[in-house]
Amino acid sequence: MARWEPNARERLVRAALDLFAEQGYDATTVNEIADRAGLTKTTFFRHFPDKREVLFAGQDTHARLLADAITEAPGPVTPLQAVGAALDAITATFTDDRREFSAKLRAVTADNSELQERAALKRGGLANAMADALRKRGVSEPPASLAAELGVRAFYQAFDQWADPVNQQTLTELARHALDELRAAIAALD
Amino acid sequence: MARWEPNARERLVRAALDLFAEQGYDATTVNEIADRAGLTKTTFFRHFPDKREVLFAGQDTHARLLADAITEAPGPVTPLQAVGAALDAITATFTDDRREFSAKLRAVTADNSELQERAALKRGGLANAMADALRKRGVSEPPASLAAELGVRAFYQAFDQWADPVNQQTLTELARHALDELRAAIAALD
Repeated sequence: MARWEPNARERLVRAALDLFAEQGYDATTVNEIADRAGLTKTTFFRHFPDKREVLFAGQDTHARLLADAITEAPGPVTPLQAVGAALDAITATFTDDRREFSAKLRAVTADNSELQERAALKRGGLANAMADALRKRGVSEPPASLAAELGVRAFYQAFDQWADPVNQQTLTELARHALDELRAAIAALD
Repeated sequence: MARWEPNARERLVRAALDLFAEQGYDATTVNEIADRAGLTKTTFFRHFPDKREVLFAGQDTHARLLADAITEAPGPVTPLQAVGAALDAITATFTDDRREFSAKLRAVTADNSELQERAALKRGGLANAMADALRKRGVSEPPASLAAELGVRAFYQAFDQWADPVNQQTLTELARHALDELRAAIAALD
């Protein structure tokens, strides 16, 4: 009896984030999230296994975006150039209307260790996706993993800056700048 | 009425690891761990907040070892040389009689997502400890964080090799080799 619920997934994500921000992650139940979204608990569980996963629903999409951009980057590219193409692809999806949502997500995550751990898993998953794609392009190890690590580092640093409402630059600009800075920094390590 | 229990902490760690390996992490209770160690639940909770923390009790000690070695590395050193000194210090504590324990710990962790998440937190904690110590020596950001990241990467890669019983090298040798390999790899990124 699965009814069609328009935008159910997105409504659940927004309801969850709002409730986590208002009353805390621990105090929020799946029932409350479904209620707030005007949906049933059954609908919730058709989309997410538990309340923790709601905020990380984009992980597979993000991993695919990054990997595809690396796979499709034209011509001979260095590992960091391929990672740069991946960051351009993912950051283009963070349009300005997502900034407020992102700021709230960042604040809610920073406030809860369970969400922080889940966020660390997502970060690792995105790094693995990029490293896999680089290896498939013939990049060896450890360079593939290192380039991927620099990529996620640049992305999250840029995301933190972008989620701050005083910031006027696009996420793409911020991520490019962060990656350039990391590129310069590795020259100073030894 | 806290009785003195000789080696209580270590007995609890060993009992927990044995039980996790035998019957799985999820199926094991704090009561069973205390029983196996010949101790009470009260003693368990004097040492650890919950069963997950038992296997990560060494985190503070490890973080301090790494940070102190960076602080005390003599003379002008590059960030990676300071990290190399930190790895020498921590790996020296992994004597050969700990290899079997480490192999079991690695297998148990690989088998459970809750332990994997906790392990990722520990890894992040160790990286932060090194990055802090590097910054206190005047290393800027992002080089301090990057050098620390390369350090934990070398350590865990070496640890995985060392925990494999076929391996005959010391953890110190393996970690030095891993760090050298990473040092060479960063030159090939761009």
